[in-house]
Amino acid sequence: VSTRWKLTIEYDGRGFCGWQRQENGHSVQAAIEEAIERFAGEAPRLTVAGRTDAGVHAAGQVAHFDLNRAWSAKTVRDALNAHLRGQGIAILAAAPVDPAFDARRSAIRRVYEYRILNRIAPPALERGRVWHVIRPLDQEAMRAAAAHLLGCHDFTSFRAAECQAKDALRTLDRLDVARYGEVISIHAEARSFLHHQVRNMVGTLRLFGEGKHPPSFMAKILAARARAAAGQTAPPDGLTLLRVDYPSD
Amino acid sequence: VSTRWKLTIEYDGRGFCGWQRQENGHSVQAAIEEAIERFAGEAPRLTVAGRTDAGVHAAGQVAHFDLNRAWSAKTVRDALNAHLRGQGIAILAAAPVDPAFDARRSAIRRVYEYRILNRIAPPALERGRVWHVIRPLDQEAMRAAAAHLLGCHDFTSFRAAECQAKDALRTLDRLDVARYGEVISIHAEARSFLHHQVRNMVGTLRLFGEGKHPPSFMAKILAARARAAAGQTAPPDGLTLLRVDYPSD
Repeated sequence: VSTRWKLTIEYDGRGFCGWQRQENGHSVQAAIEEAIERFAGEAPRLTVAGRTDAGVHAAGQVAHFDLNRAWSAKTVRDALNAHLRGQGIAILAAAPVDPAFDARRSAIRRVYEYRILNRIAPPALERGRVWHVIRPLDQEAMRAAAAHLLGCHDFTSFRAAECQAKDALRTLDRLDVARYGEVISIHAEARSFLHHQVRNMVGTLRLFGEGKHPPSFMAKILAARARAAAGQTAPPDGLTLLRVDYPSD
Repeated sequence: VSTRWKLTIEYDGRGFCGWQRQENGHSVQAAIEEAIERFAGEAPRLTVAGRTDAGVHAAGQVAHFDLNRAWSAKTVRDALNAHLRGQGIAILAAAPVDPAFDARRSAIRRVYEYRILNRIAPPALERGRVWHVIRPLDQEAMRAAAAHLLGCHDFTSFRAAECQAKDALRTLDRLDVARYGEVISIHAEARSFLHHQVRNMVGTLRLFGEGKHPPSFMAKILAARARAAAGQTAPPDGLTLLRVDYPSD
């Protein structure tokens, strides 16, 4: 009987073509799968909670895989970290879980943070970790606009053309906007998101922060159900998958 | 008549051999001096408040230089940032100052932060920005030990062999230890520090955090006036020069 393992993973998205294995490009998935194979001598495939795009970071990504041979949780964590050394990926925890656990399907909440560096000078210390927006943003206007997106809606206006979801109905539980000095932090929570949904919401919130529209106009963008009605896709740099929640937590 | 310029500078110390120009190696000083020359057509030398070592970061370094030709402050800042693009250096502010201003000699306070990532898994998101210490550290013990270093003392025990200061007498105004989850932040303030003083104090505080000595033993380490009495030099990664203060501020 095999063991199902749950990994909690931190990574710096720079230098990766994203989570998912691709023909060309170095993916987070391939790096971890190779580490598993080198350590355990088995080559299982990883199933992930959130397939992050190139340049998107994670502080608490979750994935699962199966191994035939038995190992202690400490050995799995430490051996994977040893094989991943210097690659910008850290296994925060490895835990044996119920064989019915599915990192993607069992997830009941995904939590993202998006950070905007709102100042004139470009980022040096936070390069690759923030979206640099020079024009001063009014976080109160952004907050008021964000409130119109809460709840269950058709998020077609915020959905990437490549999105493969069957429908665009999603329930957004939180979309908080807070300013800490030069940094505007946007905190988003939902059971699941459409492809690029967070980055498209952030790119649209920026327009409200610049005063291009009154906050109530966000309801019209949502109702338009057309990608062209919303703002640009914010760059991946500022986005971090903070956490994935499960009923078993 | 020339104009003296004060620069406030942020940089990521990775990839630099430190602030100071060296025969071999890419220094922050050389990168900014080259940017000044390319933009202004003059080649002044920079004088800096704190000559940070290789791998040490800055959120508010200060340096001065002179230019014969007149420029607006905005032009100096924006032109330097354009020439420094992608190098991990940002000019936060450029300001014309009194010709008597000296970034090094006029400084009345230097403020550093040192960050320790205290967990089993290695850093991924904060790689190069923290010191990774696996063994659990007791921040209360570190705080109690740090208190023995406050005030005016001979800091020979915490001074690098290469230190060129005339004497080792320094007045430490703050040495705060705080924990934020997995991160222990050490905040140090003084008019000036000896070479490696902050990193040597942090490497020594770690021993107290591990329970190797009771906090009162810090007074004995200080009184020994011998480098061998103190702990290791903490790595540069965790150190950031946060701010330099001047009477004119």
